[in-house]
Amino acid sequence: MAIITEDAYRKRVSTLNPRLFLGGKKVEDLSAHPITRGVIDATAKIYELTQDPHYADSMTARSHLTGEPISRSLHIHQSTQDIEKRLEMARLSSQKLGTCNYRCPGNEMLPALAATTWEMDRDKGTEYHTRFTEYLKYVQGADLVVSGSVTDTKGDRSKRPLDQDPDSYVHVVERKSDGIIVSGAKQHATGAYAADENLILPGLSCRKGEENYALAFALPNGSDGVTYIGQHNPYSMEREHAEDIRSIGNPLYGQRETCLIVFDRVFVPWERVFMCGEIDYTQVFISRFATTHRMNCGGACKVGFMDLIIGATQLIAEYHGLSRVSHIKDKITRMIQLSATSLACAIAAAHLGKEEPRGSGVFMPDETMSNVAKLNTNEGFWELLALAGDIVGGIGVTMPSERELENPEISSYMEKYFKSAVPAKQRLRMVRFLQNWVAGLHGVATAQGAGPSQNEVLVLYRITDLEERKRMALELANLYE
Amino acid sequence: MAIITEDAYRKRVSTLNPRLFLGGKKVEDLSAHPITRGVIDATAKIYELTQDPHYADSMTARSHLTGEPISRSLHIHQSTQDIEKRLEMARLSSQKLGTCNYRCPGNEMLPALAATTWEMDRDKGTEYHTRFTEYLKYVQGADLVVSGSVTDTKGDRSKRPLDQDPDSYVHVVERKSDGIIVSGAKQHATGAYAADENLILPGLSCRKGEENYALAFALPNGSDGVTYIGQHNPYSMEREHAEDIRSIGNPLYGQRETCLIVFDRVFVPWERVFMCGEIDYTQVFISRFATTHRMNCGGACKVGFMDLIIGATQLIAEYHGLSRVSHIKDKITRMIQLSATSLACAIAAAHLGKEEPRGSGVFMPDETMSNVAKLNTNEGFWELLALAGDIVGGIGVTMPSERELENPEISSYMEKYFKSAVPAKQRLRMVRFLQNWVAGLHGVATAQGAGPSQNEVLVLYRITDLEERKRMALELANLYE
Amino acid sequence: MAIITEDAYRKRVSTLNPRLFLGGKKVEDLSAHPITRGVIDATAKIYELTQDPHYADSMTARSHLTGEPISRSLHIHQSTQDIEKRLEMARLSSQKLGTCNYRCPGNEMLPALAATTWEMDRDKGTEYHTRFTEYLKYVQGADLVVSGSVTDTKGDRSKRPLDQDPDSYVHVVERKSDGIIVSGAKQHATGAYAADENLILPGLSCRKGEENYALAFALPNGSDGVTYIGQHNPYSMEREHAEDIRSIGNPLYGQRETCLIVFDRVFVPWERVFMCGEIDYTQVFISRFATTHRMNCGGACKVGFMDLIIGATQLIAEYHGLSRVSHIKDKITRMIQLSATSLACAIAAAHLGKEEPRGSGVFMPDETMSNVAKLNTNEGFWELLALAGDIVGGIGVTMPSERELENPEISSYMEKYFKSAVPAKQRLRMVRFLQNWVAGLHGVATAQGAGPSQNEVLVLYRITDLEERKRMALELANLYE
Amino acid sequence: MAIITEDAYRKRVSTLNPRLFLGGKKVEDLSAHPITRGVIDATAKIYELTQDPHYADSMTARSHLTGEPISRSLHIHQSTQDIEKRLEMARLSSQKLGTCNYRCPGNEMLPALAATTWEMDRDKGTEYHTRFTEYLKYVQGADLVVSGSVTDTKGDRSKRPLDQDPDSYVHVVERKSDGIIVSGAKQHATGAYAADENLILPGLSCRKGEENYALAFALPNGSDGVTYIGQHNPYSMEREHAEDIRSIGNPLYGQRETCLIVFDRVFVPWERVFMCGEIDYTQVFISRFATTHRMNCGGACKVGFMDLIIGATQLIAEYHGLSRVSHIKDKITRMIQLSATSLACAIAAAHLGKEEPRGSGVFMPDETMSNVAKLNTNEGFWELLALAGDIVGGIGVTMPSERELENPEISSYMEKYFKSAVPAKQRLRMVRFLQNWVAGLHGVATAQGAGPSQNEVLVLYRITDLEERKRMALELANLYE
Repeated sequence: MAIITEDAYRKRVSTLNPRLFLGGKKVEDLSAHPITRGVIDATAKIYELTQDPHYADSMTARSHLTGEPISRSLHIHQSTQDIEKRLEMARLSSQKLGTCNYRCPGNEMLPALAATTWEMDRDKGTEYHTRFTEYLKYVQGADLVVSGSVTDTKGDRSKRPLDQDPDSYVHVVERKSDGIIVSGAKQHATGAYAADENLILPGLSCRKGEENYALAFALPNGSDGVTYIGQHNPYSMEREHAEDIRSIGNPLYGQRETCLIVFDRVFVPWERVFMCGEIDYTQVFISRFATTHRMNCGGACKVGFMDLIIGATQLIAEYHGLSRVSHIKDKITRMIQLSATSLACAIAAAHLGKEEPRGSGVFMPDETMSNVAKLNTNEGFWELLALAGDIVGGIGVTMPSERELENPEISSYMEKYFKSAVPAKQRLRMVRFLQNWVAGLHGVATAQGAGPSQNEVLVLYRITDLEERKRMALELANLYE
Repeated sequence: MAIITEDAYRKRVSTLNPRLFLGGKKVEDLSAHPITRGVIDATAKIYELTQDPHYADSMTARSHLTGEPISRSLHIHQSTQDIEKRLEMARLSSQKLGTCNYRCPGNEMLPALAATTWEMDRDKGTEYHTRFTEYLKYVQGADLVVSGSVTDTKGDRSKRPLDQDPDSYVHVVERKSDGIIVSGAKQHATGAYAADENLILPGLSCRKGEENYALAFALPNGSDGVTYIGQHNPYSMEREHAEDIRSIGNPLYGQRETCLIVFDRVFVPWERVFMCGEIDYTQVFISRFATTHRMNCGGACKVGFMDLIIGATQLIAEYHGLSRVSHIKDKITRMIQLSATSLACAIAAAHLGKEEPRGSGVFMPDETMSNVAKLNTNEGFWELLALAGDIVGGIGVTMPSERELENPEISSYMEKYFKSAVPAKQRLRMVRFLQNWVAGLHGVATAQGAGPSQNEVLVLYRITDLEERKRMALELANLYE
Repeated sequence: MAIITEDAYRKRVSTLNPRLFLGGKKVEDLSAHPITRGVIDATAKIYELTQDPHYADSMTARSHLTGEPISRSLHIHQSTQDIEKRLEMARLSSQKLGTCNYRCPGNEMLPALAATTWEMDRDKGTEYHTRFTEYLKYVQGADLVVSGSVTDTKGDRSKRPLDQDPDSYVHVVERKSDGIIVSGAKQHATGAYAADENLILPGLSCRKGEENYALAFALPNGSDGVTYIGQHNPYSMEREHAEDIRSIGNPLYGQRETCLIVFDRVFVPWERVFMCGEIDYTQVFISRFATTHRMNCGGACKVGFMDLIIGATQLIAEYHGLSRVSHIKDKITRMIQLSATSLACAIAAAHLGKEEPRGSGVFMPDETMSNVAKLNTNEGFWELLALAGDIVGGIGVTMPSERELENPEISSYMEKYFKSAVPAKQRLRMVRFLQNWVAGLHGVATAQGAGPSQNEVLVLYRITDLEERKRMALELANLYE
Repeated sequence: MAIITEDAYRKRVSTLNPRLFLGGKKVEDLSAHPITRGVIDATAKIYELTQDPHYADSMTARSHLTGEPISRSLHIHQSTQDIEKRLEMARLSSQKLGTCNYRCPGNEMLPALAATTWEMDRDKGTEYHTRFTEYLKYVQGADLVVSGSVTDTKGDRSKRPLDQDPDSYVHVVERKSDGIIVSGAKQHATGAYAADENLILPGLSCRKGEENYALAFALPNGSDGVTYIGQHNPYSMEREHAEDIRSIGNPLYGQRETCLIVFDRVFVPWERVFMCGEIDYTQVFISRFATTHRMNCGGACKVGFMDLIIGATQLIAEYHGLSRVSHIKDKITRMIQLSATSLACAIAAAHLGKEEPRGSGVFMPDETMSNVAKLNTNEGFWELLALAGDIVGGIGVTMPSERELENPEISSYMEKYFKSAVPAKQRLRMVRFLQNWVAGLHGVATAQGAGPSQNEVLVLYRITDLEERKRMALELANLYE
């Protein structure tokens, strides 16, 4: 059976033993550390939802390889309907977790891998697609968590890889009969240390001479030579030191946790290498991944978050007795507009999707709409945060710890002065829930996830047919000959 | 045959004889007056496109009543695919005309009429749907141009109809055995004086006591007691007085022409009355019309205009030698984003459409997405105009008349000082084409067409399920019981 | 006496005889042509206001050359208080005219000329400042109208003057003992054909080899070889063909009228040449003019227009019975915010102004604040137009001609259906007044006047001290050594 | 001597013993607790700057009561120049601290108290101004830190104080011969627990019957019955648990620290009561405080923060090799525009200030410009954060703890993969410094400090003279009689 239970997942993840450093210390037990446990709890919740018949339509699919039911997180879109269901899965996951589901970026790499390996085999007689198909059967069959990483550390961004420390981008340092040796590091790797598998894609569009950087491969968690260094910030400190996580931001699931993955002369066997030197296919590879990622990340995942923020903001307005005030209603409506706009672009991206490349059987979203979804979300999410912050009021930054409620010396003050239409505890929890968004990492994280705006701007300009629009204008102005 | 040729249309329109006043004078010949001729030329172009096999998929449909091919302008959506093709028709028409196609608002009323008359017959045992079906067969069969009008003159908008001059809203003044007598006036009636038929919908959500205002009917052009008073503005003056219209804004088709339709005790036979007194159905009637109209108007018609403006702006940038400058490319890309955003919302509205009401066979777009399409266009169109105005430069307002090019005293100066990468004439024409948009009626017209923003804001707030979003937030904050 | 009356001005202007073409015809009498008459009426109103003791503080000053009272339009700022009064004059003029006052750009060139000629004489031993001082005494003494022009026609903007038709920029074609011969043309010249004097400044920052383009001079109206070609657009057509101008946009004063000034081998005597070849001083020359112009144009002139638009919009809201509605009040307040923001930047520019260059006695506004005033106005004015258009409603584009009110056949319909809280005529006039702004040339004109946004962006980046801000951040981050 | 040294301040503050709870525990030593120590360090830095002759002009003033030099934090503006210097002090303090200077809100209450007590004494024969003058001499003479609090806890904001728990607003519960007894609580009290004095102003515009709520008074820190409950959030956790604060956000001075001040039947002697029952003066009292606060907070304090953010963002762009990229430069310039806009409004507010009320000798900023400063900052600060977040890149959220650099197991990886144009440590510190802003409390704090936008919108609408603007429009439209 290709869909495993939450328990089975928890059992499997407890056997992982990555070399992980976080907050200045080595993490010895993923399931015990308060931060990494959040990653596991979030992922486990996804396994739970996948088992739930109520969500089967969006959370599961049938493998085109085996015909078996599988998690949609491991599926290759076979139609535009598949892409739409993928969207629904992304939005649902975000609504249920309020953070990353940790199966998303890996999933978004699979169609890009399927399409591009197919294309390379067709054009170059390579055997990447054959290898990838075997690999896909394996991860589908075991219902594995697959992380995906693309962004190199880059060093000086005005320089190419060979003009600076060559390890600034992940690359092949040695080719052997049974595989390759790779070095370098990928940053912003979401949940990689708790994933069964780490997928690695090329992080730049390679030019001649940069063949060693045109590289895609997969590694099991904890491979020799791999080190993970986790992100760390005030929200990490809060979680590490909280006596009771129920009183903090997103109690169960926390922030999106990422890490740097360092590859220090790591061996990858050939059967796990899906690109090695084909520089002409790097741009299309990245574009395919980005197109899928921008649609989901921009137009669905973040819409799920927006749903939560809108709900929480409306609750606070009601708690404060302000939900009937006209400017509050107009602001809530603006928040609805912003979320619906992002969603609309994602739906259009899915609906206008098509087989890409022709004959591959892989369906891809529309690139224009996908990039526009992301651009609108980059702007809209910040505006939504500002609106939520406007409505929550000053308490959004000045609230005390919920622990004061338990202090008999001041609990009556707390109850008296923090109550509103609901008791103090309920109000403070909902404010803290919102604080997590409006005074946390989400503005920047949303704008940077799947690439910052200028990336989408450059793509959009490149792929738009301006000639057709020029012709229309010339025709109407009587200037077309 | 239910699809007539451009010539047949021109012949028929030449027989119309509406009582029309425009610019201070009575118009005697619609085909001769420079302004009303523009309306006819635009409509004729639509008949031409409808005949063109290249556009058949979007411009034509099969009547669900007769199975015959008909203009999609007279079709009732039978599926979400139908709604999507409707969108394509709207965008295509705008791209080809640069102005109203004059068959649009009437068309958008037909599904609202089909759905609401069906519902009233079902609930109240009326015979509106039967009448409407006969009427629809008639207009489909003859391929008529049907205008649609909804906005009353309103007088003091803080007052209900019965608290002021009762004619401020169109209403029944007498019921007779063979029909009704109506008085009042509708404003902003697009192309009504040149349409074969004028459809009239209720302009407000009626309350008890306002039964005479719950009123829908159809009248043939030029009925007794009907007077049309055309809009008039600087662009009208330009067209009336131009020696050669090729040198003005949108040379062939001009601005969108509207009028006030005055009903001075006009008789409407019962077979053309589609609502008369059913106050409980006025809001849903208006909502259905608005939903369709906002999707097309906001998300497709105006996207066609944006295509033209983007094309013209890119041409000017090229003429001026500026198209490779980075801030110009970023601005053009922003224009592309704005147009794609509106389009995405419309596509989502169509794609998420459904049968409404169940059993009626009539498909309606999704109301959230339709209103969001309009809201985004209201903002985006102004921004697009500002960007186009930024790129065209000062000449967008300071250009001289093209006629100076023909004056031998200064033609060499004109050629010398207005040339750029293209000759002066071509550049000036394209600037004039853009001036028509960036210094014309389009900003306000776009924001007001299909209702100003606050209308959409109120709808969006009303139809959004905030309870579901609140529940999600409570669940994640551990506050849901 | 150095301040003349409106009548004296009208008498003098009636003697001007420029070679002017407009709308395809030669204009024989400036005072008779409906368009050029508007320019004269606007200027005459300024002479009237200058005589009015009520406005003496802002409209007049004392000449630093003679100690005599003069029009502030001909004054060189001697203090920051002078700059502030200059602002007040600009705002007042716009409030009274609703269009250009035609003495503004020329006036803004005077301090730039005073400062830069002083600097060149000091550094290079030239005699430009001596000449300019004499010239200034002359125009102050006779209270002349001085126009100012800076923008060349440019041709292909990616090319320098010498890489294309050399006449694309105004330049010296011959140097003689008594003066120079110049050719080329300046565009966007506001009111130049009705001014007594035309001032010409260099339009680009010149490089080595472009000495002939480093050129500033003054010419009396109608000099030999000078031809004016007036702007022409739908608003021109309206004014030319209106039977009664009271029913059109800005009844008395109309749009801002500009022209192309062609110099066809025009002789300029040395005493009227204020720069000729000093390429190193062209950038500072333009910057000084731009700084003053952007402060006035962006932060005061357009604020006067915004005052008018806010007033008209509020009136329409009252006429329609909507002025107490909360979203209307919020939008009016937003309009107030936008206008106050532009004004604040201008006030700050004036208040932070200083003597520039040291020792010259000429005061200049703060360059940062001046450019920021313009940038905010570029954005804010479009937004204000959109808000006004939102509040005026559909009638802003669909209103008929006021002449219909006089047609006995339909006057009762007009009265009945266009009345609101005020009679139809009053409402229609106020709507037309607003239409002039929201559906006219003002959006683009405002954004382009004094240079489009990217000009200000480049200046702002160039003049900002980023090093100081970096140092502050390093210090607080404990990284400063 | 009325200006004390940093050391003298530190000595005095070490004697304070407020009843303070923070993070679930009682704070026993303000100077030892890592959070409250930040408040003291920030305040001490202000004392240091005040002693610095380099900053004397902005940091000090002469008391109008004694003629002695005093800290400007305790000064009553005697002129518009005083208001301008107050602005400079606010911006400078923010640049030096990157957080609150803790003497600001109290200072902004002093002119409001001076003006309003003077007015009440004049109108009502009270002796508030006499008392206040004595009090002011006392605090000026001892160079005390005075906090100021205005916002009540409010409970259900749709209800007046007497319609709910009466303690929702601070009020008099008993009047005695020697003073009054007050109950209630003030929230968002910045730095109150470490201030020598707590000033309390009325938090609502009182109506008849609410006399007990029209209340202003001062209390020394640690008065009987006063309890402080400190804010607590992830940034508090970080600071409490950091092993080395040099590696966290704003190393020395941290976030702005606020608290709830609970008054549980607290006695206030009459000589410290500055309003008690004068409901007609509550609105003007609040307005005067708000006007000063919005100018400083919106237009100067936050501009100092923006200076820091711009500096840090430019540094990161340079570290990453991106500072010459055109879209980066345009974004930096936009940040400069936003900060200059806020500053311009504040400068205009100061410059247009006037004596208020006439005869009081107290100068107040212009109310329009002050509110506009705040409105622009509310929007601009969020946009600035978004731009900084865009430029810093994904590392802004995914960076690891700096402590990893000290771990010999991975320090070489850290050095290698986090270096750019500067070593890893320097880059990580600057990113953390920016993270403090772009992923912290500042967006909401900025928008809420001195009141959320709708407060300013309501004020701006109320105080604007729309009649004058209407008259102008009517005049130009020929409709003025």
